[in-house]
Amino acid sequence: MSTGHVGTVELLAGIAGVGRDRARGGYSRHLATPAESDLRDWFAEQAGRRGLDVETDRNGNVWAWWGTPGPDAVVTGSHLDSVPGGGAFDGPLGVASALAAVEDLVARGFAPARPLAVVVFAEEEGGRFGVPCLGSRLLTGDLDADRARGLRDADGVSLAEALTARGDDPSALGPDPERLARVGRFVELHVEQGRALDAPVGIGSAVVAHGRWRLTFTGQGNHAGTTALTDRRDPMIPAAATVLAARRAAARVADARATVGRLVPNPGGTNVIASSVDLWLDVRIPAGEPGPVVEDVLGAARAAADAEGCTVELGRESLSPAVAFDDALAARLAAAVPGAPTLATAAGHDAGVLAAHAPAGMLHVRNPTGISHAPQEHAEDDDVSHGARALADVLAELAR
Amino acid sequence: MSTGHVGTVELLAGIAGVGRDRARGGYSRHLATPAESDLRDWFAEQAGRRGLDVETDRNGNVWAWWGTPGPDAVVTGSHLDSVPGGGAFDGPLGVASALAAVEDLVARGFAPARPLAVVVFAEEEGGRFGVPCLGSRLLTGDLDADRARGLRDADGVSLAEALTARGDDPSALGPDPERLARVGRFVELHVEQGRALDAPVGIGSAVVAHGRWRLTFTGQGNHAGTTALTDRRDPMIPAAATVLAARRAAARVADARATVGRLVPNPGGTNVIASSVDLWLDVRIPAGEPGPVVEDVLGAARAAADAEGCTVELGRESLSPAVAFDDALAARLAAAVPGAPTLATAAGHDAGVLAAHAPAGMLHVRNPTGISHAPQEHAEDDDVSHGARALADVLAELAR
Repeated sequence: MSTGHVGTVELLAGIAGVGRDRARGGYSRHLATPAESDLRDWFAEQAGRRGLDVETDRNGNVWAWWGTPGPDAVVTGSHLDSVPGGGAFDGPLGVASALAAVEDLVARGFAPARPLAVVVFAEEEGGRFGVPCLGSRLLTGDLDADRARGLRDADGVSLAEALTARGDDPSALGPDPERLARVGRFVELHVEQGRALDAPVGIGSAVVAHGRWRLTFTGQGNHAGTTALTDRRDPMIPAAATVLAARRAAARVADARATVGRLVPNPGGTNVIASSVDLWLDVRIPAGEPGPVVEDVLGAARAAADAEGCTVELGRESLSPAVAFDDALAARLAAAVPGAPTLATAAGHDAGVLAAHAPAGMLHVRNPTGISHAPQEHAEDDDVSHGARALADVLAELAR
Repeated sequence: MSTGHVGTVELLAGIAGVGRDRARGGYSRHLATPAESDLRDWFAEQAGRRGLDVETDRNGNVWAWWGTPGPDAVVTGSHLDSVPGGGAFDGPLGVASALAAVEDLVARGFAPARPLAVVVFAEEEGGRFGVPCLGSRLLTGDLDADRARGLRDADGVSLAEALTARGDDPSALGPDPERLARVGRFVELHVEQGRALDAPVGIGSAVVAHGRWRLTFTGQGNHAGTTALTDRRDPMIPAAATVLAARRAAARVADARATVGRLVPNPGGTNVIASSVDLWLDVRIPAGEPGPVVEDVLGAARAAADAEGCTVELGRESLSPAVAFDDALAARLAAAVPGAPTLATAAGHDAGVLAAHAPAGMLHVRNPTGISHAPQEHAEDDDVSHGARALADVLAELAR
């Protein structure tokens, strides 16, 4: 029986070749792609090797049970999908650490007094269909199933079509209160994604408020050579002004972040004035709600669109209020991981969605550079080892 | 025997369903795609019906001959490819009008005293591989064949790979002086692309200088939530500043145009600070060369990149100096089309490439809205009719 340390690093090595993105670098592991199927198969196999019983719920989340599924279960896990061109740790570290922790507990001769499960949530990043924490939001009912079925990827394929294509029934999507009610406690281990943790392992206190909006600027497509500047209604102009306005708006609010990482001109030809531009705005606010920052950005977007004879429409793709994790659970995590610092995270997590329905908490593993959502994302082997051992200690504390 | 009027409109109707772009609207008809194959087949069939002998040259340009191919030929034609999401007239109007004009001349009982050819040039828009007038530049030797073979589309497929995939030999690409020497006169009919022509048909006097550049901004990909604003090196910031700088730089030079119609953040995730952004800059200058405008934009791009801790690299994709069409040929066109106004064009054309090697000229057909490179691009049937008749008159004058 291997230790948790070797287990986690070796487990991650086993999927190092899955879903590599040669064009972007790193990994693109999105819902209902061959890479995601491979990862789900890998998880089922690894869980089976550890004696866990695997089931997939109606929303594509995969559960591996130690003991009979039932209420008051101790649940841990994370996700296996990635952002486009993401790193190796965001998501898989939590899943691999959970499998390693189970193996560690077995090696210790631990017998859980209540059911214990490892869960893999679907499409946590929203990398393909735009809504983050898709699987957990469907499970809890926070995301309407009809809206989910109609979500479309960059190629225009709907979630319903993608699920049908892989042989799943999209009409099954929806709230799953019985399964949700089994979750007595939820603990997610995750690589830290900034530079806030200067210890191997930390304990999550909160998730900051987070929302995603899509702004569509519409002008008049035209010829890049023959159209006089004064005749132009070029939506790239207000879109560019909005990218800069987002940075300024975030800078006006303490510790807020606003980002435009995705911007798509249509039709996107070099010698073509765009007819429309879609731009996605990601806003996070540690103290308060994103609304005022979004209003600030939208005001600038409208003014720039007006000046160019363009229009702008705003649509909200997701909104996650600030989450404070359960104090009592955090205290038990702190007791199980002595000396671990406490920190809030500005990243979104399934634990934040679960927190409204069951006591939830997080363990964070140190990120030496703070880089995340990029191929350079990293965690040291020793810290990974600490994390898996800490998770085993936490599960032993909660499941005894 | 139909008239040129009915012929041209009917001919265009025959390809109205080919290469439609459901996502962008309009047409996407790019080199070595099924749509382009269908268009080439259509052209070969239509030319054959009119008794023309069809040959494809080593660079994928298609020639249809009335009479034995040989020197001092009168050549007309245009292209069938489109920009992404382009209109129905830019390119195909010149090809269809040429076929209709041939039919008209046959109906008139005209017997050309020298060879006459209709040509379809490959990838005039550079819509897939970035370099405009790809086929004519290869023919003349203005574009190095090795460089052409290495051009890559947005999916990373090289021109050599794309040609091989459709069964062509990419090693055949290169200058074709023998075929070029056959061109005694070249006349291209084209839909006007601005609002400069207030008559059914006009005569081209010049093509303004035109260049395309690619700017690559590189920063550090990272997490959109956890990365503090002060820790960011987000290449979207200088890229957006450069879009706005391009507009300002063009406005400082009389009648210049600078456009960013294509911008691609990598990896392009909503919750991801981009690691790099590619941005394409299209510059046209009626009096002078694009260089100073590009330097102006580049200066702003460098300053914005420096301020964000990013780098920027500039690469030139193409540069076409200003072209003044042959005066003597223009005078003969004016004699054949009495009362037609003369105009320069800020759009690029194969006629501009040919002009350095043989007397070349253009006929422009009125564009009632000035919209081009967009699905709304339009020409009225009556003007199309005028254009085809004028082209027949021009060919009769030149080939007698």
